[in-house]
Amino acid sequence: MTENLKKTRENIVFIGGKPFINYVTGVVMQFTTNNAVKVIIKSRGKFIGKAVDVAEIARRKFLADKNISVEDVKIGSEKFENKEGKSINVSTMEIILKRNP
Amino acid sequence: MTENLKKTRENIVFIGGKPFINYVTGVVMQFTTNNAVKVIIKSRGKFIGKAVDVAEIARRKFLADKNISVEDVKIGSEKFENKEGKSINVSTMEIILKRNP
Repeated sequence: MTENLKKTRENIVFIGGKPFINYVTGVVMQFTTNNAVKVIIKSRGKFIGKAVDVAEIARRKFLADKNISVEDVKIGSEKFENKEGKSINVSTMEIILKRNP
Repeated sequence: MTENLKKTRENIVFIGGKPFINYVTGVVMQFTTNNAVKVIIKSRGKFIGKAVDVAEIARRKFLADKNISVEDVKIGSEKFENKEGKSINVSTMEIILKRNP
């Protein structure tokens, strides 16, 4: 059970304002150290472009020998309230990377 | 034949540095004025986030009554030479929007 819980939580990488390489390392470590089969890269708004870069660099440069493919890319929108209490929309993206046998 | 040629070419919207609303209008007009069944939104590098915004705003705000879905999202990389003649990689994305019957 602990194993499942761990897998569910740790296979998601949220892209934010930290240095680019941190997220690449995060994705790579999921597939290597943690032996994950799937890793989901989540992003919103201005971090969407960075998320694609992370997926591509991790896959093509650091995991080139691991046979990782892009299983799916989902885009959507989320409503949230800004500081002024105004409801605004932000685009969201999920990139699902999968290790092939 | 002319009709086919027109459709093939004009169903692609390339996202660049013009104002956001220009691209939204471009996508919306494909589905309305041009009666397109599919529209492909192409982007590279820093314009990838903008492309997702264009797809989402066009679909949810301007085409809400048209039953447009995201058929597929593809990500990849492209090599190109910068001004100094150095080969660099850039992330690419294609969002395929489709009108459902």
